[in-house]
Amino acid sequence: MSALNDGSRSVTLRDVAKAAGVSLATASAALAGQGRMAVQTRERIVQTAAELKYSRNPLGYGLRTGRTYAIGLHHVDMIRALNETYLLEFMSGVTQVAHAQDHDVALLSSNSTTPRRNMPRVDGIIVMDPLSDDARARELITSGMPVVSGEFLPAGMPPGIAVTADHATAVREILDHVYADGLRSMLLIAPGSNSGWGEALRETVRTWCDAHGVRAHYGEYDFGEQDADLLERLVEPILRQNPDIDFVLTAGAAGVFGAIGAIHAVGRIPGTDVRLACGADGARLAGAPLFITAVQLPARELGAACAETLLSIVEGDDSALLPVNRTIPAEVIFRQSTQR
Amino acid sequence: MSALNDGSRSVTLRDVAKAAGVSLATASAALAGQGRMAVQTRERIVQTAAELKYSRNPLGYGLRTGRTYAIGLHHVDMIRALNETYLLEFMSGVTQVAHAQDHDVALLSSNSTTPRRNMPRVDGIIVMDPLSDDARARELITSGMPVVSGEFLPAGMPPGIAVTADHATAVREILDHVYADGLRSMLLIAPGSNSGWGEALRETVRTWCDAHGVRAHYGEYDFGEQDADLLERLVEPILRQNPDIDFVLTAGAAGVFGAIGAIHAVGRIPGTDVRLACGADGARLAGAPLFITAVQLPARELGAACAETLLSIVEGDDSALLPVNRTIPAEVIFRQSTQR
Repeated sequence: MSALNDGSRSVTLRDVAKAAGVSLATASAALAGQGRMAVQTRERIVQTAAELKYSRNPLGYGLRTGRTYAIGLHHVDMIRALNETYLLEFMSGVTQVAHAQDHDVALLSSNSTTPRRNMPRVDGIIVMDPLSDDARARELITSGMPVVSGEFLPAGMPPGIAVTADHATAVREILDHVYADGLRSMLLIAPGSNSGWGEALRETVRTWCDAHGVRAHYGEYDFGEQDADLLERLVEPILRQNPDIDFVLTAGAAGVFGAIGAIHAVGRIPGTDVRLACGADGARLAGAPLFITAVQLPARELGAACAETLLSIVEGDDSALLPVNRTIPAEVIFRQSTQR
Repeated sequence: MSALNDGSRSVTLRDVAKAAGVSLATASAALAGQGRMAVQTRERIVQTAAELKYSRNPLGYGLRTGRTYAIGLHHVDMIRALNETYLLEFMSGVTQVAHAQDHDVALLSSNSTTPRRNMPRVDGIIVMDPLSDDARARELITSGMPVVSGEFLPAGMPPGIAVTADHATAVREILDHVYADGLRSMLLIAPGSNSGWGEALRETVRTWCDAHGVRAHYGEYDFGEQDADLLERLVEPILRQNPDIDFVLTAGAAGVFGAIGAIHAVGRIPGTDVRLACGADGARLAGAPLFITAVQLPARELGAACAETLLSIVEGDDSALLPVNRTIPAEVIFRQSTQR
C-alpha cells in the first residue's frame, strides 16, 4: 500500500498490541513484566512481539534504525502554515523543544502531486491538524515511524497519539456562560468531517445541547477556509430558516465575519439579538465591529508538548505512548459578543 | 578538524579546483572537455579529479551519496528567526521552492553548546546570515556538503557561494540622493566585522565617500542587536565629537531609534539637521516619529534564489557553482527622513 520505499519500517509497540488483540497499555505492561493479566495473555503478547521481531530496546527506535536527530513536521499546506500566526507559534514551540535537545526540525514537503520519493530522514513525525483526505498525512501516519498528531486525528485516519487543546472544556465554559443569560437555539459553524477539530466541536456542542434542552444547528465548511463572504452565504439561510437561533459559535475567525454579515442580512443585531463566540482567538478578530469572546488556543504549548511526547517515544520511552491523548488547557477570553 | 562523524564527506568540484590550483570555471570546463586551456592544465585537472575520486555524474551529488530530498537551513538563532519577519519571509521563500520540487526543509538545530552529533540528513544546506564566530555555521560550511549562503559570507569563513541582496546599489542610491541636498559628513552604524553584511556596508560607504570627498564615521554593534538604548549610547558620543555629521545611515531598525534618541540628546533635529536612512525596511520603522527612508530587502526572493541555487548544485549542475555570487535587486523607499 505505502509508496514509501525506504524499507526502514520498524515494528512498533502498536503493531504488537494490534496483532495480539490487546490495548497499548496491556502490551506495554506485558513486555515490561508488569501489570495484572492472565498468564496466557502475557505469553501471547510476548510470543507476538518475538514473531514480529519487536525490539524493546531501552534506547528505543533510535538504536534500532540509526538516529538522525531530526523530527519531521507535516501540515497539509506548509506554505500557508508559514503565514499563519497559530501555526507559526506551534512550529516555534516544536522547534524550541527540539533544538533544546539538539534535534533538527524538518518542514516536510506537502507537495501531494506525487507520493513521497523516500521516507523523510527523521526519527519521528509531528502531523499538524491532520485531515482525513490528506494523502501525504496518511502516508506518514501509516509509515511505521513514531508519529504524534498536533490536534485531533480525524475519523478515518489510523488511531494514534494526539496532543490536543482542551476545546471541550473551553466550549462548555462558553455555552454555560451564554446559557446563564438564556439560550434557546444555537448554530455551530465548523470545518467538515475530514477535520478532527470540527468533529470534536460538534460532539461537544451536541452532548451539551442534549443535556440542556437547547436546539443545535450545524453548518460545515472546508478546514482552513478564510473567505468570510463564502461563510456568510453558508450562515444566512440557516439563520433565515431558524429565527430562534440566538447564539452562533464559529470554529475560526472567518466564520465570525461571515456570521456578523449574515446576522445583519436577516435584520438582526450581532451581539444583542444573536450572540457570538469563536473557537480560536487571533489577530483577525481585532478587526470585528464588536469584541469577540474566543478560546485562546495554546499554540506554542501544543507544539512543545508534541515535540516532548515525540522525543520521548524516539528515546524509547514506551510509557510516552500512554495515554494516547494528552490535553493542554485552553483559556476562554470573555468579551462583549456574549453579553446581552 | 570537523566534529561531523557521518563520513559522507564527498569530493566537490571546488576540492578539485583547489587541489589543481585552478578556478572553479576552469576545473568545470576541463572535466567537461570544454574551454580553452593548455593540454597540460586539462590533464592535471583530470588527473587531480581521478586522484580525489571526484565523480562528475550527470545526476550529481545525489546519486553518489544517496539523496535525502531534504535541504537544511541554518541560522545562528533559529528560535529568534521564527519570530522575525525578514527571516520568516526568507524561510518561506526557501520552503516554497523546495516544496515545489518536493524537498523537505530542515530547520537545523543551532544549539551550539556541543558539536553536532551527526551530519544533518540533507542534500545541501542554506546558511542564513552567517557570522564568522558562529561555530555551527563553520562546521556546516566546512562539512563538504553543498552550501549556499543567504547573504554575505564574512571574512574568516571559507569562501563559498553566496546569494545577496544588492545592498551596494541601494546604499549608493541613498547616498546620491542625500548628497544632492548637501552632505559633508556621515555616520554608518552597522554590525561588526563578524557580519559580512556589516563589512559590505562599510566597504560601500567608504568607497563612495572617498569618491565624493565626504567624511565617513563608523559605529559597530553586535549583529542582531535590537536594543535602541544601547545603540543610542553608541551614537551619541560620535555625534558629540563630530558636530559636522549631517546624515546617519543605520543597518537595522534598532539603529534608527538609537540615532533619533542620540540626535535629540545633542540638541539637533532628526530629519532636518541630521538626516536618517535605514538599510533594512520593516514594520518596526512604522513606530518612528518620522517616516524613514529604507532599503526594502527582498527576503522571499533571496530565500527562493538560495533554494534554487542549492537545488541545482544538488542536481549536479556544475554551472550553478558559477558565478560564486548571485545578487538580487533591492528597492529603496524614499521617505521624509532624507528630505530636508
